[in-house]
Amino acid sequence: MTLGEIASRLGGRVVGDAATPIRQVGSLENAATGEIAFLSGPKHKARLAATGASAVILSKEFEDLTSLPRIVCESPYLYFARVSQLFNPQTTQAAGIHPSAVVSPSARVAKTASIGAGCVVGDDVSIGEGSCLYPRVVVYHGCTLGARVVLHSGVVIGADGFGIAQDEAGRWVKIPQIGAVRIGDGVEIGANTTVDRGALDDTLIEEGVKLDNQIQIGHNCRVGAHSAMAGCVAVAGSADIGRHCTIGAAAVILGHLKLADHVHVSAGTVISRSIHKPGTYTGLFPFDDHESWAKNTALVRHLADLAARIRALEKEKKSD
Amino acid sequence: MTLGEIASRLGGRVVGDAATPIRQVGSLENAATGEIAFLSGPKHKARLAATGASAVILSKEFEDLTSLPRIVCESPYLYFARVSQLFNPQTTQAAGIHPSAVVSPSARVAKTASIGAGCVVGDDVSIGEGSCLYPRVVVYHGCTLGARVVLHSGVVIGADGFGIAQDEAGRWVKIPQIGAVRIGDGVEIGANTTVDRGALDDTLIEEGVKLDNQIQIGHNCRVGAHSAMAGCVAVAGSADIGRHCTIGAAAVILGHLKLADHVHVSAGTVISRSIHKPGTYTGLFPFDDHESWAKNTALVRHLADLAARIRALEKEKKSD
Amino acid sequence: MTLGEIASRLGGRVVGDAATPIRQVGSLENAATGEIAFLSGPKHKARLAATGASAVILSKEFEDLTSLPRIVCESPYLYFARVSQLFNPQTTQAAGIHPSAVVSPSARVAKTASIGAGCVVGDDVSIGEGSCLYPRVVVYHGCTLGARVVLHSGVVIGADGFGIAQDEAGRWVKIPQIGAVRIGDGVEIGANTTVDRGALDDTLIEEGVKLDNQIQIGHNCRVGAHSAMAGCVAVAGSADIGRHCTIGAAAVILGHLKLADHVHVSAGTVISRSIHKPGTYTGLFPFDDHESWAKNTALVRHLADLAARIRALEKEKKSD
Repeated sequence: MTLGEIASRLGGRVVGDAATPIRQVGSLENAATGEIAFLSGPKHKARLAATGASAVILSKEFEDLTSLPRIVCESPYLYFARVSQLFNPQTTQAAGIHPSAVVSPSARVAKTASIGAGCVVGDDVSIGEGSCLYPRVVVYHGCTLGARVVLHSGVVIGADGFGIAQDEAGRWVKIPQIGAVRIGDGVEIGANTTVDRGALDDTLIEEGVKLDNQIQIGHNCRVGAHSAMAGCVAVAGSADIGRHCTIGAAAVILGHLKLADHVHVSAGTVISRSIHKPGTYTGLFPFDDHESWAKNTALVRHLADLAARIRALEKEKKSD
Repeated sequence: MTLGEIASRLGGRVVGDAATPIRQVGSLENAATGEIAFLSGPKHKARLAATGASAVILSKEFEDLTSLPRIVCESPYLYFARVSQLFNPQTTQAAGIHPSAVVSPSARVAKTASIGAGCVVGDDVSIGEGSCLYPRVVVYHGCTLGARVVLHSGVVIGADGFGIAQDEAGRWVKIPQIGAVRIGDGVEIGANTTVDRGALDDTLIEEGVKLDNQIQIGHNCRVGAHSAMAGCVAVAGSADIGRHCTIGAAAVILGHLKLADHVHVSAGTVISRSIHKPGTYTGLFPFDDHESWAKNTALVRHLADLAARIRALEKEKKSD
Repeated sequence: MTLGEIASRLGGRVVGDAATPIRQVGSLENAATGEIAFLSGPKHKARLAATGASAVILSKEFEDLTSLPRIVCESPYLYFARVSQLFNPQTTQAAGIHPSAVVSPSARVAKTASIGAGCVVGDDVSIGEGSCLYPRVVVYHGCTLGARVVLHSGVVIGADGFGIAQDEAGRWVKIPQIGAVRIGDGVEIGANTTVDRGALDDTLIEEGVKLDNQIQIGHNCRVGAHSAMAGCVAVAGSADIGRHCTIGAAAVILGHLKLADHVHVSAGTVISRSIHKPGTYTGLFPFDDHESWAKNTALVRHLADLAARIRALEKEKKSD
């Protein structure tokens, strides 16, 4: 494919030789002849100058930073994603059910779906067109996957939610989890992520949601359409997360609360009450060299005392 | 089963038609005819008013909020758990060993136990009566599971603990992990949770413990009877956790420390020293909108300085 | 083996009967006759006095605390690791490919490597001499494992990194992940840990790295040689971690940042910017009993206000 052909498919303006042949994408640092890279921002100028790529994708403001053949567009990263999709398949597993997979006879699996080695698909599960389960995914009974759902290895869909009640003696009585999990079209879920079945009603992952690895979604949660979560996020039961939200790595969303659409939670933040207004929310405790941290952090336990002493000084001042 | 039959089995007082037929539990929001729901508190009044359930479980103080047939009891949530158990099995897998499971000839598996598809059970493992391993559980050699132990998919019991010593050149020398894991009766462990084998002595999960998904229990830990942990908790090696403790989601318990019985750790809290007194312990850094967070958090690094300035003001005051 | 034979292999000075027979290692607390234990520090004096071990490993300063046969050496913990290796194999699985494993015909697996039950090894994967994959490991296509690599159950190597770009409508467009993962010699990776393949270039785990359970390594990270991470660490994409670093349990390393060699991150700490200087870094929010926590923590949101009030007091003071 030539640079010109790419632009005629995906838009953007070609600067330089439109006949430049392109066969793959690459990074500025390591791209070779025939590869196209992208510039995400001015801090990678030096890499751009030294790149072995045959062409570059960049935005208008940086188009004069190189004399290489280039495509100028509004969102180089998004454009790059689309170019990469031209050259690479979205999943790498052929359609069909691997002989080592264990699929219940009552499961409905679309002909175009792909079920990898060692997968286990329970009774009455439904898997839509073009979906792909990489090796060793488990889907418990009764769960529903839409079309083009991608589940990476080690994903567990529909295990029991954590529903227990304490008896008079302090022992735990299990609440059978009789809901299921429903996953919308185009959802992708990363390796070893778990989504629990509902206690009574279903857990919902709406269309276009993207979950990274090692995320835990508790029972009866809803994750709104086109929301995305980075690795190791924990979402406790019955959280209701809106559409187009993003949740940073290792953030925690406590249970029984609601996040509006377009809420962005920073990495490492624990959300402990509902958020009704779109925006970015953060609760990261700053790190420091160990000695400075120890000195300052000891005072966190005395903040109420410090505040009282300030009040006292202010009062004396006034009475002066 | 009728409402009256439920009450005669489980106790509680029937108000309204005791002949009301009940065939399943449901949520206030989505229950249909023949289903019984429960009211957890007054904030769900509106849902109670609109419910399609045939009957409701609630406490004395709320018994007049509805005219539906109802069971009045002390702990509606606990009562509901027991009603749900009447209608639903605790596990959904038949007894026996799935042909795709790989079970060592030296393992002792009770006849009434259930080993799901793709499970791997190592040498000299012992699995008690009525236990259930859902698909793709691994139990390493030498580990012991009591009766009625439930392990969800992706659980790994008895992998090597993280025991390494640094040599003179800064390379890591592995300490072989020759202990095992012993799990008591009635323990349930959620999807993708891992419990490491002991370095020398065994790691212990005592009877009635409930662990949610994606929890990590380090080598040589003890988790005392009837303790419960929510998802994504990390427990470092040699932690000794008492009985009847609860650990909130994504909390971290550091190693070589001891928690007394009846200690409750809030979600997102890191426990960095032993706790000898029952009670609730919290260490959650509060989140805020990003701008407010940035403004306030910057000062955490200057707390020692702020405290010194308060002291100086107090001193000047005195010398006035 | 006798105590004297151990010392002649591993060094150290024997005090007492060098002919004492030793057949295994044990803990001070539970060791029996024929076992050798070690003393890590003076706080275990009482255990030393009561031990049933036949011999003890300890440092010079404590050599007179016991009359048992003993080996005196500089680093008892390291010495103990080496003694344990004499008596115990580093892995417990025989060489060869288990019949239930699914290994691509294009994979290159060394004859001396061991592939456990239910493992899945993708196309063009390379696995070096003496490596051991415990049951249910998945290695995606194109990844490379050096010699003596140990992967515990549930590990997933080479699943897609989390590369998505947002389109004009707020939907996520996947960036195909066309890099792979390269793992150096002597690396050990704990149960259910995931290492993502690179977006364009490879993700690198250098020789001698030790990763505990449930760690997530994002795409395009580099983990420098002989670094070690405790359980549940999350490393976001493109982080570049130096050599001989240690990362404590449940710490989080954000993406696109660099840690110098010999950086030590405390447990529970979120690293949000690059660290260029060796040393120990901490960012743990202190826990407290719930009431004290609530009182003090409320003021974190008012730190900027407190600081302003201190400034005002200082100003008035000056103008006095």
